[in-house]
Amino acid sequence: MTRCYNFCAGPAALPESVLAQARDDMLDWHGAGLSIMEMSHRSAEIVGIAERAEQSLRELLGIGDDYALLFLQGGATLQFTMVPMNFLDTARSADYLDTGSWTTKAIQDARLHGNVNVAFEGEACGYDHVPSAAEVTLDDNAAYTYYCSNNTIYGTQYKSHPVAPTPLICDASSDIFSHPIDIAAHALIFAGAQKNLGPAGCTLVIVRKDFLGRAKDGLPAILDY
Amino acid sequence: MTRCYNFCAGPAALPESVLAQARDDMLDWHGAGLSIMEMSHRSAEIVGIAERAEQSLRELLGIGDDYALLFLQGGATLQFTMVPMNFLDTARSADYLDTGSWTTKAIQDARLHGNVNVAFEGEACGYDHVPSAAEVTLDDNAAYTYYCSNNTIYGTQYKSHPVAPTPLICDASSDIFSHPIDIAAHALIFAGAQKNLGPAGCTLVIVRKDFLGRAKDGLPAILDY
Repeated sequence: MTRCYNFCAGPAALPESVLAQARDDMLDWHGAGLSIMEMSHRSAEIVGIAERAEQSLRELLGIGDDYALLFLQGGATLQFTMVPMNFLDTARSADYLDTGSWTTKAIQDARLHGNVNVAFEGEACGYDHVPSAAEVTLDDNAAYTYYCSNNTIYGTQYKSHPVAPTPLICDASSDIFSHPIDIAAHALIFAGAQKNLGPAGCTLVIVRKDFLGRAKDGLPAILDY
Repeated sequence: MTRCYNFCAGPAALPESVLAQARDDMLDWHGAGLSIMEMSHRSAEIVGIAERAEQSLRELLGIGDDYALLFLQGGATLQFTMVPMNFLDTARSADYLDTGSWTTKAIQDARLHGNVNVAFEGEACGYDHVPSAAEVTLDDNAAYTYYCSNNTIYGTQYKSHPVAPTPLICDASSDIFSHPIDIAAHALIFAGAQKNLGPAGCTLVIVRKDFLGRAKDGLPAILDY
Protein backbone atom coordinates (compact mmCIF):
# COMPACT_ATOMS: atom_id res chain seq x y z
CA MET A 1 0.00 0.00 0.00
CA THR A 2 1.28 3.47 -0.91
CA ARG A 3 -0.32 6.46 0.76
CA CYS A 4 -0.22 9.59 -1.39
CA TYR A 5 1.08 12.95 -0.23
CA ASN A 6 -2.19 14.88 -0.16
CA PHE A 7 -1.84 18.63 -0.74
CA CYS A 8 -5.56 19.13 -1.50
CA ALA A 9 -7.07 22.35 -0.04
CA GLY A 10 -9.82 20.11 1.32
CA PRO A 11 -11.21 17.77 2.43
CA ALA A 12 -8.77 17.33 5.28
CA ALA A 13 -6.00 14.77 4.98
CA LEU A 14 -6.34 12.46 7.99
CA PRO A 15 -3.48 11.11 10.14
CA GLU A 16 -2.63 7.52 9.25
CA SER A 17 -2.90 6.53 12.93
CA VAL A 18 -6.49 7.81 13.03
CA LEU A 19 -7.44 5.88 9.90
CA ALA A 20 -5.75 2.75 11.26
CA GLN A 21 -7.79 2.96 14.46
CA ALA A 22 -11.02 3.46 12.47
CA ARG A 23 -10.06 0.42 10.38
CA ASP A 24 -9.29 -1.75 13.41
CA ASP A 25 -12.54 -0.77 15.19
CA MET A 26 -14.77 -1.11 12.10
CA LEU A 27 -16.51 -4.41 12.91
CA ASP A 28 -16.23 -4.36 16.70
CA TRP A 29 -15.75 -1.08 18.56
CA HIS A 30 -13.64 -1.68 21.69
CA GLY A 31 -15.13 -5.13 22.17
CA ALA A 32 -18.75 -3.91 22.11
CA GLY A 33 -19.58 -6.50 19.43
CA LEU A 34 -20.76 -4.02 16.82
CA SER A 35 -19.56 -1.10 14.71
CA ILE A 36 -19.78 2.45 16.01
CA MET A 37 -22.11 3.10 13.03
CA GLU A 38 -24.59 0.53 14.39
CA MET A 39 -24.77 1.92 17.94
CA SER A 40 -27.69 3.90 19.33
CA HIS A 41 -27.11 7.62 19.71
CA ARG A 42 -28.44 7.15 23.24
CA SER A 43 -25.93 4.41 24.17
CA ALA A 44 -23.24 5.01 26.80
CA GLU A 45 -20.60 4.41 24.12
CA ILE A 46 -21.79 7.13 21.72
CA VAL A 47 -22.63 9.60 24.48
CA GLY A 48 -19.14 9.03 25.89
CA ILE A 49 -17.48 9.58 22.49
CA ALA A 50 -19.38 12.85 22.04
CA GLU A 51 -18.47 14.00 25.55
CA ARG A 52 -14.78 13.24 25.02
CA ALA A 53 -14.82 15.02 21.65
CA GLU A 54 -16.36 18.08 23.28
CA GLN A 55 -13.85 18.00 26.15
CA SER A 56 -10.92 17.72 23.70
CA LEU A 57 -12.20 20.69 21.69
CA ARG A 58 -12.65 22.75 24.86
CA GLU A 59 -9.06 22.02 25.93
CA LEU A 60 -7.50 22.61 22.49
CA LEU A 61 -9.30 25.91 21.85
CA GLY A 62 -9.58 27.08 25.47
CA ILE A 63 -13.37 27.23 25.49
CA GLY A 64 -15.01 28.06 28.83
CA ASP A 65 -18.32 26.92 30.29
CA ASP A 66 -20.03 30.12 29.16
CA TYR A 67 -19.92 28.70 25.61
CA ALA A 68 -21.93 25.77 24.26
CA LEU A 69 -20.49 23.38 21.66
CA LEU A 70 -22.85 21.97 19.05
CA PHE A 71 -22.18 19.17 16.56
CA LEU A 72 -24.54 19.85 13.65
CA GLN A 73 -25.02 19.02 9.96
CA GLY A 74 -25.40 21.10 6.81
CA GLY A 75 -21.96 22.73 6.76
CA ALA A 76 -21.20 26.43 6.81
CA THR A 77 -23.99 26.97 4.27
CA LEU A 78 -26.71 25.96 6.74
CA GLN A 79 -25.00 28.00 9.48
CA PHE A 80 -25.00 31.21 7.48
CA THR A 81 -28.71 30.67 6.92
CA MET A 82 -29.43 29.88 10.58
CA VAL A 83 -27.54 32.93 11.89
CA PRO A 84 -29.85 35.57 10.33
CA MET A 85 -32.89 33.31 10.79
CA ASN A 86 -32.19 33.24 14.54
CA PHE A 87 -30.65 36.65 15.21
CA LEU A 88 -31.75 39.15 12.54
CA ASP A 89 -35.12 40.85 12.91
CA THR A 90 -36.89 43.77 11.32
CA ALA A 91 -35.86 46.19 14.09
CA ARG A 92 -32.13 46.18 13.27
CA SER A 93 -29.72 45.39 10.47
CA ALA A 94 -26.64 43.18 10.66
CA ASP A 95 -23.09 44.15 9.68
CA TYR A 96 -21.33 41.91 7.13
CA LEU A 97 -17.70 42.19 6.02
CA ASP A 98 -17.52 40.91 2.44
CA THR A 99 -14.06 39.47 1.74
CA GLY A 100 -14.96 36.85 -0.87
CA SER A 101 -17.39 34.27 -2.13
CA TRP A 102 -18.38 32.75 1.22
CA THR A 103 -19.35 36.08 2.74
CA THR A 104 -21.05 37.10 -0.52
CA LYS A 105 -23.23 33.99 -0.24
CA ALA A 106 -23.86 34.64 3.46
CA ILE A 107 -25.01 38.19 2.63
CA GLN A 108 -27.44 36.86 -0.01
CA ASP A 109 -29.01 34.52 2.55
CA ALA A 110 -29.11 37.16 5.31
CA ARG A 111 -31.03 39.55 3.02
CA LEU A 112 -33.87 37.01 2.94
CA HIS A 113 -34.33 37.54 6.69
CA GLY A 114 -33.71 41.28 7.18
CA ASN A 115 -31.54 44.26 6.37
CA VAL A 116 -27.82 43.88 5.80
CA ASN A 117 -25.23 46.62 6.16
CA VAL A 118 -22.21 45.64 4.06
CA ALA A 119 -19.66 47.16 6.43
CA PHE A 120 -16.81 46.36 4.07
CA GLU A 121 -17.31 45.78 0.34
CA GLY A 122 -14.32 43.87 -1.00
CA GLU A 123 -15.56 43.44 -4.56
CA ALA A 124 -14.30 46.89 -5.63
CA CYS A 125 -10.72 45.89 -4.84
CA GLY A 126 -11.11 42.38 -6.28
CA TYR A 127 -11.03 40.89 -2.78
CA ASP A 128 -7.29 41.52 -2.62
CA HIS A 129 -7.09 42.21 1.13
CA VAL A 130 -9.00 42.05 4.40
CA PRO A 131 -10.06 45.46 5.69
CA SER A 132 -8.25 47.60 8.23
CA ALA A 133 -10.41 49.05 11.00
CA ALA A 134 -10.48 52.36 9.09
CA GLU A 135 -12.07 50.67 6.07
CA VAL A 136 -14.99 49.21 8.03
CA THR A 137 -18.22 51.10 8.73
CA LEU A 138 -19.90 49.37 11.66
CA ASP A 139 -23.34 50.07 13.11
CA ASP A 140 -23.39 50.32 16.93
CA ASN A 141 -26.96 49.07 16.84
CA ALA A 142 -26.43 46.06 14.55
CA ALA A 143 -27.79 42.68 15.62
CA TYR A 144 -24.31 41.23 15.03
CA THR A 145 -21.15 41.58 12.94
CA TYR A 146 -20.33 38.73 10.56
CA TYR A 147 -17.02 37.84 8.90
CA CYS A 148 -15.19 34.85 7.44
CA SER A 149 -11.72 34.34 8.92
CA ASN A 150 -10.36 32.95 5.65
CA ASN A 151 -11.85 33.00 2.16
CA THR A 152 -9.69 30.38 0.46
CA ILE A 153 -10.63 31.36 -3.10
CA TYR A 154 -9.16 34.88 -2.74
CA GLY A 155 -6.73 34.14 0.09
CA THR A 156 -8.30 36.87 2.20
CA GLN A 157 -7.34 35.69 5.70
CA TYR A 158 -7.51 37.80 8.85
CA LYS A 159 -4.33 37.78 10.96
CA SER A 160 -6.46 38.93 13.90
CA HIS A 161 -10.23 39.13 14.25
CA PRO A 162 -12.03 42.38 13.42
CA VAL A 163 -13.10 44.45 16.43
CA ALA A 164 -16.83 45.23 16.54
CA PRO A 165 -19.21 46.90 18.99
CA THR A 166 -21.82 44.17 18.44
CA PRO A 167 -21.75 40.35 18.81
CA LEU A 168 -19.05 38.97 16.51
CA ILE A 169 -19.83 35.91 14.36
CA CYS A 170 -17.14 34.04 12.43
CA ASP A 171 -17.15 31.41 9.69
CA ALA A 172 -13.84 29.69 10.54
CA SER A 173 -14.30 26.64 8.30
CA SER A 174 -11.01 26.83 6.44
CA ASP A 175 -8.55 27.93 9.12
CA ILE A 176 -9.89 26.65 12.44
CA PHE A 177 -7.12 24.87 14.41
CA SER A 178 -4.41 26.46 12.25
CA HIS A 179 -3.84 29.13 14.94
CA PRO A 180 -5.26 30.07 18.38
CA ILE A 181 -8.68 31.80 18.39
CA ASP A 182 -9.74 34.55 20.79
CA ILE A 183 -12.96 32.78 21.72
CA ALA A 184 -14.07 35.47 24.20
CA ALA A 185 -14.14 38.06 21.40
CA HIS A 186 -16.80 36.06 19.55
CA ALA A 187 -20.50 35.39 20.16
CA LEU A 188 -20.62 32.51 17.67
CA ILE A 189 -18.00 30.64 15.63
CA PHE A 190 -18.82 27.87 13.19
CA ALA A 191 -16.77 25.56 10.98
CA GLY A 192 -17.67 22.78 8.59
CA ALA A 193 -15.46 19.85 9.55
CA GLN A 194 -14.26 18.86 6.10
CA LYS A 195 -11.56 21.49 5.62
CA ASN A 196 -9.56 21.37 8.83
CA LEU A 197 -11.25 19.14 11.41
CA GLY A 198 -11.96 15.76 9.84
CA PRO A 199 -14.27 14.01 7.39
CA ALA A 200 -17.20 15.85 5.83
CA GLY A 201 -20.56 15.56 7.54
CA CYS A 202 -20.18 17.40 10.84
CA THR A 203 -20.30 21.14 11.56
CA LEU A 204 -18.86 22.54 14.77
CA VAL A 205 -20.62 25.51 16.40
CA ILE A 206 -19.16 27.36 19.40
CA VAL A 207 -21.74 29.78 20.78
CA ARG A 208 -21.87 31.98 23.88
CA LYS A 209 -24.81 30.82 25.96
CA ASP A 210 -26.12 34.31 26.71
CA PHE A 211 -26.15 35.08 22.96
CA LEU A 212 -28.35 32.01 22.37
CA GLY A 213 -30.93 33.67 24.62
CA ARG A 214 -31.39 36.41 22.00
CA ALA A 215 -32.56 34.00 19.30
CA LYS A 216 -36.02 34.58 17.87
CA ASP A 217 -39.02 32.45 18.81
CA GLY A 218 -41.21 30.51 16.40
CA LEU A 219 -38.48 28.84 14.34
CA PRO A 220 -38.62 25.29 13.00
CA ALA A 221 -37.12 22.99 15.65
CA ILE A 222 -34.07 21.90 13.68
CA LEU A 223 -33.17 25.47 12.62
CA ASP A 224 -33.50 26.94 16.13
CA TYR A 225 -30.17 27.14 18.00
CA MET B 1 -14.06 -11.04 17.71
CA THR B 2 -17.69 -11.73 18.50
CA ARG B 3 -20.31 -9.78 16.62
CA CYS B 4 -23.53 -9.28 18.59
CA TYR B 5 -26.99 -10.08 17.31
CA ASN B 6 -28.37 -6.56 16.95
CA PHE B 7 -32.14 -6.28 17.34
CA CYS B 8 -32.09 -2.50 17.88
CA ALA B 9 -34.95 -0.59 16.17
CA GLY B 10 -32.26 1.73 14.82
CA PRO B 11 -29.63 2.66 13.77
CA ALA B 12 -29.47 0.02 11.08
CA ALA B 13 -27.39 -3.10 11.65
CA LEU B 14 -24.91 -3.32 8.78
CA PRO B 15 -23.93 -6.47 6.85
CA GLU B 16 -20.57 -7.85 7.99
CA SER B 17 -19.37 -7.93 4.36
CA VAL B 18 -20.04 -4.20 4.01
CA LEU B 19 -18.16 -3.38 7.20
CA ALA B 20 -15.27 -5.63 6.11
CA GLN B 21 -15.00 -3.77 2.80
CA ALA B 22 -15.06 -0.39 4.59
CA ARG B 23 -12.32 -1.68 6.89
CA ASP B 24 -10.16 -2.95 4.04
CA ASP B 25 -10.52 0.29 2.05
CA MET B 26 -9.98 2.63 5.03
CA LEU B 27 -6.41 3.77 4.33
CA ASP B 28 -6.33 3.28 0.58
CA TRP B 29 -9.55 3.22 -1.45
CA HIS B 30 -9.15 0.86 -4.43
CA GLY B 31 -5.47 1.76 -4.79
CA ALA B 32 -6.09 5.52 -4.97
CA GLY B 33 -3.54 6.07 -2.20
CA LEU B 34 -5.92 7.79 0.20
CA SER B 35 -9.09 7.19 2.19
CA ILE B 36 -12.50 7.89 0.71
CA MET B 37 -12.89 10.46 3.51
CA GLU B 38 -9.92 12.43 2.18
CA MET B 39 -11.08 12.61 -1.46
CA SER B 40 -12.50 15.71 -3.08
CA HIS B 41 -16.25 15.71 -3.65
CA ARG B 42 -15.39 16.76 -7.21
CA SER B 43 -13.05 13.79 -7.86
CA ALA B 44 -13.95 11.09 -10.38
CA GLU B 45 -13.91 8.54 -7.55
CA ILE B 46 -16.51 10.29 -5.37
CA VAL B 47 -18.69 11.34 -8.31
CA GLY B 48 -18.61 7.71 -9.50
CA ILE B 49 -19.58 6.37 -6.08
CA ALA B 50 -22.53 8.79 -5.90
CA GLU B 51 -23.64 7.86 -9.42
CA ARG B 52 -23.49 4.13 -8.65
CA ALA B 53 -25.41 4.66 -5.41
CA GLU B 54 -28.11 6.57 -7.31
CA GLN B 55 -28.28 3.91 -10.02
CA SER B 56 -28.61 1.12 -7.42
CA LEU B 57 -31.42 2.97 -5.66
CA ARG B 58 -33.22 3.55 -8.96
CA GLU B 59 -33.02 -0.17 -9.80
CA LEU B 60 -34.02 -1.41 -6.34
CA LEU B 61 -37.02 0.92 -5.97
CA GLY B 62 -37.96 1.16 -9.67
CA ILE B 63 -37.50 4.93 -9.88
CA GLY B 64 -37.89 6.49 -13.33
CA ASP B 65 -36.16 9.47 -14.89
CA ASP B 66 -39.10 11.73 -14.04
CA TYR B 67 -37.89 11.61 -10.41
CA ALA B 68 -34.74 13.22 -8.99
CA LEU B 69 -32.74 11.56 -6.19
CA LEU B 70 -31.10 13.83 -3.62
CA PHE B 71 -28.58 12.86 -0.94
CA LEU B 72 -29.01 15.45 1.82
CA GLN B 73 -28.30 15.99 5.51
CA GLY B 74 -30.44 16.91 8.52
CA GLY B 75 -32.60 13.78 8.65
CA ALA B 76 -36.38 13.60 8.41
CA THR B 77 -36.59 16.57 10.78
CA LEU B 78 -35.03 18.95 8.25
CA GLN B 79 -37.17 17.43 5.49
CA PHE B 80 -40.46 18.04 7.28
CA THR B 81 -39.35 21.65 7.69
CA MET B 82 -38.27 22.04 4.06
CA VAL B 83 -41.52 20.57 2.68
CA PRO B 84 -43.83 23.35 3.96
CA MET B 85 -41.10 25.97 3.47
CA ASN B 86 -40.96 25.05 -0.23
CA PHE B 87 -44.53 24.04 -1.02
CA LEU B 88 -46.94 25.65 1.46
CA ASP B 89 -48.06 29.23 0.83
CA THR B 90 -50.75 31.52 2.15
CA ALA B 91 -53.16 30.73 -0.71
CA ARG B 92 -53.79 27.10 0.29
CA SER B 93 -53.54 24.76 3.26
CA ALA B 94 -51.84 21.35 3.36
CA ASP B 95 -53.41 18.06 4.44
CA TYR B 96 -51.61 16.12 7.20
CA LEU B 97 -52.51 12.64 8.45
CA ASP B 98 -51.48 12.47 12.11
CA THR B 99 -50.63 8.87 13.05
CA GLY B 100 -48.05 9.50 15.77
CA SER B 101 -45.16 11.55 17.06
CA TRP B 102 -43.34 12.11 13.74
CA THR B 103 -46.40 13.49 11.98
CA THR B 104 -47.29 15.51 15.10
CA LYS B 105 -43.85 17.16 14.92
CA ALA B 106 -44.22 17.68 11.16
CA ILE B 107 -47.57 19.41 11.72
CA GLN B 108 -46.00 21.75 14.32
CA ASP B 109 -43.32 22.80 11.83
CA ALA B 110 -45.77 23.15 8.92
CA ARG B 111 -47.93 25.53 10.97
CA LEU B 112 -44.99 27.95 11.06
CA HIS B 113 -45.25 28.27 7.27
CA GLY B 114 -49.00 28.22 6.59
CA ASN B 115 -52.34 26.60 7.33
CA VAL B 116 -52.58 22.90 8.10
CA ASN B 117 -55.68 20.74 7.71
CA VAL B 118 -55.31 17.74 10.02
CA ALA B 119 -57.08 15.34 7.69
CA PHE B 120 -56.87 12.51 10.22
CA GLU B 121 -56.41 13.14 13.93
CA GLY B 122 -55.06 9.96 15.52
CA GLU B 123 -54.62 11.30 19.04
CA ALA B 124 -58.27 10.66 19.96
CA CYS B 125 -57.82 6.92 19.40
CA GLY B 126 -54.37 6.86 21.02
CA TYR B 127 -52.74 6.35 17.61
CA ASP B 128 -53.95 2.74 17.58
CA HIS B 129 -54.46 2.47 13.83
CA VAL B 130 -53.84 4.15 10.48
CA PRO B 131 -56.99 5.67 8.94
CA SER B 132 -59.23 4.05 6.39
CA ALA B 133 -60.19 6.24 3.43
CA ALA B 134 -63.54 6.93 5.14
CA GLU B 135 -61.78 8.41 8.18
CA VAL B 136 -59.78 10.96 6.19
CA THR B 137 -61.09 14.41 5.22
CA LEU B 138 -58.98 15.62 2.33
CA ASP B 139 -59.05 19.04 0.67
CA ASP B 140 -59.10 18.92 -3.15
CA ASN B 141 -57.29 22.26 -3.16
CA ALA B 142 -54.51 21.38 -0.68
CA ALA B 143 -50.91 22.14 -1.63
CA TYR B 144 -50.07 18.52 -0.79
CA THR B 145 -51.02 15.56 1.42
CA TYR B 146 -48.46 14.45 4.01
CA TYR B 147 -48.18 11.13 5.85
CA CYS B 148 -45.61 8.94 7.58
CA SER B 149 -45.58 5.36 6.31
CA ASN B 150 -44.59 3.98 9.71
CA ASN B 151 -44.58 5.66 13.12
CA THR B 152 -42.43 3.21 15.07
CA ILE B 153 -43.41 4.48 18.52
CA TYR B 154 -47.08 3.56 18.02
CA GLY B 155 -46.61 0.91 15.36
CA THR B 156 -48.97 2.75 13.01
CA GLN B 157 -47.78 1.44 9.64
CA TYR B 158 -49.68 1.76 6.38
CA LYS B 159 -50.06 -1.48 4.42
CA SER B 160 -50.69 0.62 1.31
CA HIS B 161 -50.28 4.34 0.79
CA PRO B 162 -53.25 6.67 1.34
CA VAL B 163 -54.97 7.89 -1.82
CA ALA B 164 -55.13 11.66 -2.17
CA PRO B 165 -56.29 14.14 -4.84
CA THR B 166 -53.19 16.33 -4.24
CA PRO B 167 -49.42 15.63 -4.39
CA LEU B 168 -48.60 12.88 -1.88
CA ILE B 169 -45.57 13.29 0.40
CA CYS B 170 -44.25 10.46 2.56
CA ASP B 171 -41.79 10.21 5.45
CA ALA B 172 -40.58 6.63 4.85
CA SER B 173 -37.61 6.73 7.24
CA SER B 174 -38.41 3.64 9.23
CA ASP B 175 -39.76 1.21 6.63
CA ILE B 176 -38.12 2.15 3.32
CA PHE B 177 -36.71 -0.96 1.61
CA SER B 178 -38.81 -3.26 3.79
CA HIS B 179 -41.40 -3.55 0.98
CA PRO B 180 -41.95 -2.20 -2.57
CA ILE B 181 -43.10 1.43 -2.83
CA ASP B 182 -45.52 2.77 -5.45
CA ILE B 183 -43.20 5.60 -6.44
CA ALA B 184 -45.55 6.99 -9.10
CA ALA B 185 -48.24 7.61 -6.47
CA HIS B 186 -45.93 10.04 -4.64
CA ALA B 187 -44.67 13.54 -5.39
CA LEU B 188 -41.92 13.35 -2.75
CA ILE B 189 -40.60 10.59 -0.48
CA PHE B 190 -37.86 11.11 2.08
CA ALA B 191 -36.02 8.84 4.51
CA GLY B 192 -33.25 9.43 7.01
CA ALA B 193 -30.66 6.74 6.33
CA GLN B 194 -30.05 5.60 9.88
CA LYS B 195 -33.09 3.37 10.34
CA ASN B 196 -33.15 1.19 7.25
CA LEU B 197 -30.54 2.36 4.73
CA GLY B 198 -27.18 2.63 6.47
CA PRO B 199 -25.20 4.79 8.88
CA ALA B 200 -26.62 8.05 10.21
CA GLY B 201 -25.72 11.23 8.34
CA CYS B 202 -27.45 10.94 4.97
CA THR B 203 -31.07 11.60 4.03
CA LEU B 204 -32.52 10.22 0.82
CA VAL B 205 -35.09 12.32 -1.07
CA ILE B 206 -37.00 11.01 -4.08
CA VAL B 207 -38.92 13.83 -5.73
CA ARG B 208 -40.90 14.15 -8.95
CA LYS B 209 -39.19 16.74 -11.12
CA ASP B 210 -42.39 18.53 -12.13
CA PHE B 211 -43.31 18.89 -8.43
CA LEU B 212 -39.98 20.62 -7.79
CA GLY B 213 -41.10 23.30 -10.22
CA ARG B 214 -43.85 24.31 -7.80
CA ALA B 215 -41.42 25.26 -5.03
CA LYS B 216 -41.51 28.84 -3.80
CA ASP B 217 -38.88 31.41 -4.75
CA GLY B 218 -36.74 33.40 -2.35
CA LEU B 219 -35.64 30.57 -0.07
CA PRO B 220 -32.17 30.23 1.46
CA ALA B 221 -30.01 28.24 -0.97
CA ILE B 222 -29.52 25.18 1.20
CA LEU B 223 -33.23 24.91 2.10
CA ASP B 224 -34.45 25.27 -1.51
CA TYR B 225 -35.09 21.91 -3.20
